[in-house]
Amino acid sequence: MKVAMIGTGVVGRTLAGKMASLGHEVVIGTRDVQALMARTEIGRAERETFAAWHAANQGVRVASFAEAARHGEVVFHATNGARALDALRSCGAENLNGKVLIDISNPLDFSRGFPPSLSVCNTDSLAEQIQREFPQARLVKTLNTVSAPVMVAPESVGGADHQVFVSGNDEAAKATVTDILKSWFGWRNVLDLGDISAARGMEMYLPLWVRMMGVLQSPMFNVRVVTQGSS
Amino acid sequence: MKVAMIGTGVVGRTLAGKMASLGHEVVIGTRDVQALMARTEIGRAERETFAAWHAANQGVRVASFAEAARHGEVVFHATNGARALDALRSCGAENLNGKVLIDISNPLDFSRGFPPSLSVCNTDSLAEQIQREFPQARLVKTLNTVSAPVMVAPESVGGADHQVFVSGNDEAAKATVTDILKSWFGWRNVLDLGDISAARGMEMYLPLWVRMMGVLQSPMFNVRVVTQGSS
Repeated sequence: MKVAMIGTGVVGRTLAGKMASLGHEVVIGTRDVQALMARTEIGRAERETFAAWHAANQGVRVASFAEAARHGEVVFHATNGARALDALRSCGAENLNGKVLIDISNPLDFSRGFPPSLSVCNTDSLAEQIQREFPQARLVKTLNTVSAPVMVAPESVGGADHQVFVSGNDEAAKATVTDILKSWFGWRNVLDLGDISAARGMEMYLPLWVRMMGVLQSPMFNVRVVTQGSS
Repeated sequence: MKVAMIGTGVVGRTLAGKMASLGHEVVIGTRDVQALMARTEIGRAERETFAAWHAANQGVRVASFAEAARHGEVVFHATNGARALDALRSCGAENLNGKVLIDISNPLDFSRGFPPSLSVCNTDSLAEQIQREFPQARLVKTLNTVSAPVMVAPESVGGADHQVFVSGNDEAAKATVTDILKSWFGWRNVLDLGDISAARGMEMYLPLWVRMMGVLQSPMFNVRVVTQGSS
């Protein structure tokens, strides 16, 4: 499938690399291709420069936000939450309309240091902001509740028996995303939380996630939903 | 042990009843004892009037907030989040100072209907507000992430293999609460998230919990934290 990845951080790289390895035609989008390839700074949580990552992942093409979005039959969004709306505006609504848009971002605000707060929450969410700005994009929120390595390898924790959430207003889009999560990445348990306003809960889970990461001293974890019937 | 329960809703009743059945001397506190006993209204999530509940739980003594708090060697707080600070002020700081104060409440705001939003979140939490107002109370936040029946019977879901969180600034108080959770209620996995600011994440988990409850059509669930080592 022709896939766009908007965002070149750890999440964007991890998913783009995984999808290219599965044979998909992946274009990763950035604001300024030359600046990205020339960048020597290594960001928080990154292991290497983008250029070094790309040298090992040449199956992924690097292009502008708009060119990547135009290419994608499905568009993943994984920029820093603070830049999300700007990045998607640069993609152009005409390149998002009618497409399944998969939002993985979190509105984390590091301006007061660590741990981060959220730049939007409670009676709104970043996903709802995106849906309001791009009403014709078939938005699905997912994967924002786990770290990048877990997103593409759920079997790496808890024997793959744990949950990833989806929310969105378009049932067919959620079905497409559920199929992608299962058949591309190996997720077994996809829990549909309803319409896109459920993204509030998915994003507001992050402060708890950050605390658990600190206690567990690793981002390699997730939660399994247990009920009366489960053991 | 002499235990105070501040709050007479479903959580207060469930915990008070359980602790009395274990042989503890439980006093449940309310603003106006006569008004509570005379009340015929049955609140959201309640199964019966307080008087009907109390007729079946006569081991629990009913008293004013202040009298209950004065009685307790350990004080549980489980009022409606919107009334929390007022209720604790009525208890009197002199009846809370130096004691382990266990906060189970959530700052749920139903003023815009269901699902609720939070009246405080992100850069603050209800637990932190309580700690600031009662700096000499040895505050521990816990149990707010599960429904009342699960609080006192963790074995009712997932074979008791799931997590309850604790946070607070007083390590000895957290040790006392951890012992209570394990030896009174049967919790096996108590995850210490650190200082009281971790209550932000514990309270901000509620919107996700509410959504999961809707999807699962039951409040009888919890989450198990799975890691690389767990299966």
